Amino acid sequence: MVKTNKGRFFEDYTVGDVLTHAVPRTVSGGERALYHALYPARHALYSSDVFAQRCGLPASPLDDMAAFHVVFGKTVPDVSLNAVANLGYGEGRWLLPVYVDDTLRSVSEVIGVKQNSNGKTGVVYVRTRGLNQRDETVLEYVRWVMVRKGNPDAPAPESIVPSLAAVVDPSALAIPAGLDFSAYDFDLSGEPHRWGDYEIGEQIDHVDGVTVEEAEHMMATRLWQNTAKVHFDVNARPDGSRLIYGGHVISMARALSFNGLANAQMVVGLNAGAHANPCLSGDTIYAWSEVLDKAETSAPGVGAIRLRLVATKGHKPFALRGEDGKYQTEVLLDLDYWALMPT
Amino acid sequence: MVKTNKGRFFEDYTVGDVLTHAVPRTVSGGERALYHALYPARHALYSSDVFAQRCGLPASPLDDMAAFHVVFGKTVPDVSLNAVANLGYGEGRWLLPVYVDDTLRSVSEVIGVKQNSNGKTGVVYVRTRGLNQRDETVLEYVRWVMVRKGNPDAPAPESIVPSLAAVVDPSALAIPAGLDFSAYDFDLSGEPHRWGDYEIGEQIDHVDGVTVEEAEHMMATRLWQNTAKVHFDVNARPDGSRLIYGGHVISMARALSFNGLANAQMVVGLNAGAHANPCLSGDTIYAWSEVLDKAETSAPGVGAIRLRLVATKGHKPFALRGEDGKYQTEVLLDLDYWALMPT
Amino acid sequence: MVKTNKGRFFEDYTVGDVLTHAVPRTVSGGERALYHALYPARHALYSSDVFAQRCGLPASPLDDMAAFHVVFGKTVPDVSLNAVANLGYGEGRWLLPVYVDDTLRSVSEVIGVKQNSNGKTGVVYVRTRGLNQRDETVLEYVRWVMVRKGNPDAPAPESIVPSLAAVVDPSALAIPAGLDFSAYDFDLSGEPHRWGDYEIGEQIDHVDGVTVEEAEHMMATRLWQNTAKVHFDVNARPDGSRLIYGGHVISMARALSFNGLANAQMVVGLNAGAHANPCLSGDTIYAWSEVLDKAETSAPGVGAIRLRLVATKGHKPFALRGEDGKYQTEVLLDLDYWALMPT
Repeated sequence: MVKTNKGRFFEDYTVGDVLTHAVPRTVSGGERALYHALYPARHALYSSDVFAQRCGLPASPLDDMAAFHVVFGKTVPDVSLNAVANLGYGEGRWLLPVYVDDTLRSVSEVIGVKQNSNGKTGVVYVRTRGLNQRDETVLEYVRWVMVRKGNPDAPAPESIVPSLAAVVDPSALAIPAGLDFSAYDFDLSGEPHRWGDYEIGEQIDHVDGVTVEEAEHMMATRLWQNTAKVHFDVNARPDGSRLIYGGHVISMARALSFNGLANAQMVVGLNAGAHANPCLSGDTIYAWSEVLDKAETSAPGVGAIRLRLVATKGHKPFALRGEDGKYQTEVLLDLDYWALMPT
Repeated sequence: MVKTNKGRFFEDYTVGDVLTHAVPRTVSGGERALYHALYPARHALYSSDVFAQRCGLPASPLDDMAAFHVVFGKTVPDVSLNAVANLGYGEGRWLLPVYVDDTLRSVSEVIGVKQNSNGKTGVVYVRTRGLNQRDETVLEYVRWVMVRKGNPDAPAPESIVPSLAAVVDPSALAIPAGLDFSAYDFDLSGEPHRWGDYEIGEQIDHVDGVTVEEAEHMMATRLWQNTAKVHFDVNARPDGSRLIYGGHVISMARALSFNGLANAQMVVGLNAGAHANPCLSGDTIYAWSEVLDKAETSAPGVGAIRLRLVATKGHKPFALRGEDGKYQTEVLLDLDYWALMPT
Repeated sequence: MVKTNKGRFFEDYTVGDVLTHAVPRTVSGGERALYHALYPARHALYSSDVFAQRCGLPASPLDDMAAFHVVFGKTVPDVSLNAVANLGYGEGRWLLPVYVDDTLRSVSEVIGVKQNSNGKTGVVYVRTRGLNQRDETVLEYVRWVMVRKGNPDAPAPESIVPSLAAVVDPSALAIPAGLDFSAYDFDLSGEPHRWGDYEIGEQIDHVDGVTVEEAEHMMATRLWQNTAKVHFDVNARPDGSRLIYGGHVISMARALSFNGLANAQMVVGLNAGAHANPCLSGDTIYAWSEVLDKAETSAPGVGAIRLRLVATKGHKPFALRGEDGKYQTEVLLDLDYWALMPT
């Protein structure tokens, strides 16, 4: 009896399946500190208990992207071990902040399957939820991946493609209980720019770059208990390079965006995301953002801002797509998210 | 007066000597998180407080191997600073789980000395105990090392070679108070395989590999406050390479063994261990296991399994010894241990 | 409206300005563990709660140099983003130990400005204080940096050069409340040498060396939220190398000095410091110390020792200045500090 996990193949997914992902995780100050060692993260709400308390929270939460990685990592053995490509994200919402001592686990429901015309692969859509020790959902998102068939002769399932919102409606964003930016300290947050200072269409070059190393991306990816071989084993890809986990690029870009968006504190919605090109050790990651939309919220002093966050290899402000509509080769990431800012 | 530590030489050890090792250490969530960043560790009992509590423990303990490294590291300045080789381990038992906020220190007793026929080196046997802040022994093991003589003319001591058990008797294994696997959650642990599903003689290829980096093994080795120069200084070895601490290979192999042995949760006995060949940065570590024995325990739903864990450089499942009885060159580690599994 | 921080230029500083630095930081066991993973730190008071309690403290504090880095890192965006060189430190005092769960922030006052004769740069002197969540000053120091002018035509300000003490008077050193070395455990601290065993003028070669890696210094520097581009981005310096943060060298040298100064436990004064030559990845850092002075204190069993700590590239014990009075090329750091030792 083979004891090791071969992962699921395309024909192993059926719409309605519920996947209980393994290895729950209790987070501590260790995860918080490592996040700050691995990324140049400086958003004050995630750095200081005192700052967070002045904003109405009980303590400084774990970075929203770290919470995302913890939840995402658990899904890899069940969802993407045999994935050819991570195709997209959508309908993501952070519903509760994650604090030190919380224990997270992940559950996914298969919400769509569609075999590709080549008959060798198919697209699987899952809605993943991260739950805490009180069985409260702390975040949820949809992700779709292209997965190999294990048996090429397996019959094609009925195609079911879920209808996904292009953007999370701002009225559906979850504002943490008690959040109040009325007494927000702009000196300690690092920049004076308020929600009202940003205009739709405005683009921001975040200026700073970080050259990435093998040891760093492997430590990050292991910390989230993501087991995909391509990130760790030089023998896993034909060219002998270790592919950097896309989430490492997300966190690096989000942290770099502090310079110009220091007050875009909490990430509460994920509208879309694409890993446009592979990132490898030795690449220098830069980032730029564009304000896509703004919305009011019911919380005191809190506005929502919809941002496009683009990571590039080398300093290529505002690079995105070529004339052919395809991502330029320098573009690593194109992420569309909602954040909360003081108004 | 020279203030720096030159380490002990062979003639400085006398059977019966008690060595009080320096630098006690309080462990926190930081050590736990770093362990998970440095190794692909996924055993649920060491990842989740909730999972551990469902198994009858007060919280998720520090990984048993991390506890071993903390205790071991303290012995290096007194035992192995002038060691030529680490020859073996035996009679190891984990007696109490280590939790966040515990403070560990180490004490060793010299239990054997035997000068080698070349007159330049000798073998020293020590029994080391790790103690917590309540002076309870949390683990103990015997280790023997080959140590240089400082003065080649020092007379050979009377040879005393301790009689060591080849295997820790399963009846002597310490089961943590309260441990109960009756309500064990196989979905959250990651695999369905129970103690009853493993057969003596069964071999498991753990499939996954990890390429190791200088920064990682140095961070790990420093974290355990192991000061052996060969791990840190390119000038310490003739070929300019930094030798990777054998414990780094142990932890990497143990973590990789999750894939196929996800339910071999707690390490409670160390029967034997050999670092067969040196490991260097850039090597890719794989692992395989063999079931050597099984035993029942008195705790509800808890069985003991004796495992051989072999780490190899490159994917060489079931490689061990050549026809000459020597370890094959790809073999890095041959470890023989007891773990606890749900029955 | 440009949203990103361009940093201040020489003409932007006026004596008397108070700079409230951004991004307060709550420290946890994660920062402590990372400090021990990044440096071979073994001073027992900073490793063990039990040891610290036996010395009269409530718990083991964060390493004094880690506290320094946290406070220092916050000043970079306001003080040294456009710095040409970090020229010196002085009048540094650690006033209160920093414990897990403390939240630190930094405030600086401009205490001197002096334009250089080339008209393109000037020297800025700031006195920085680190404050905890109770608004108590935990440490303070003066630092002076050479900063570029943004507008070469900006008029030279009136030169004001603060009068700084060459050495912190030992009577001004802050001894932590309750500190008592009467029951100090020399077995657990790692060395038997007391304050009385050191002579003024004595030099100590700390013997051990550590080869440094890119991933390590970047993780350290990010952990302290130091944003200077030269440490992270291969494009920031003409030669494509990443300059290692001077504080990384300080911590490495201080940790290496354990071997010979294991009982120089608490750093309480910073008299002077110079980063003599740049340090790059691949360099192997060694350290030596010289006893510059000794003083008694009012605390039971506690003496003060003034030490010169020199870090070198390669093992060059007692290398310092050449016949021309300039630092030898192998010298990375020359630090002059006060520490507390058991008498």
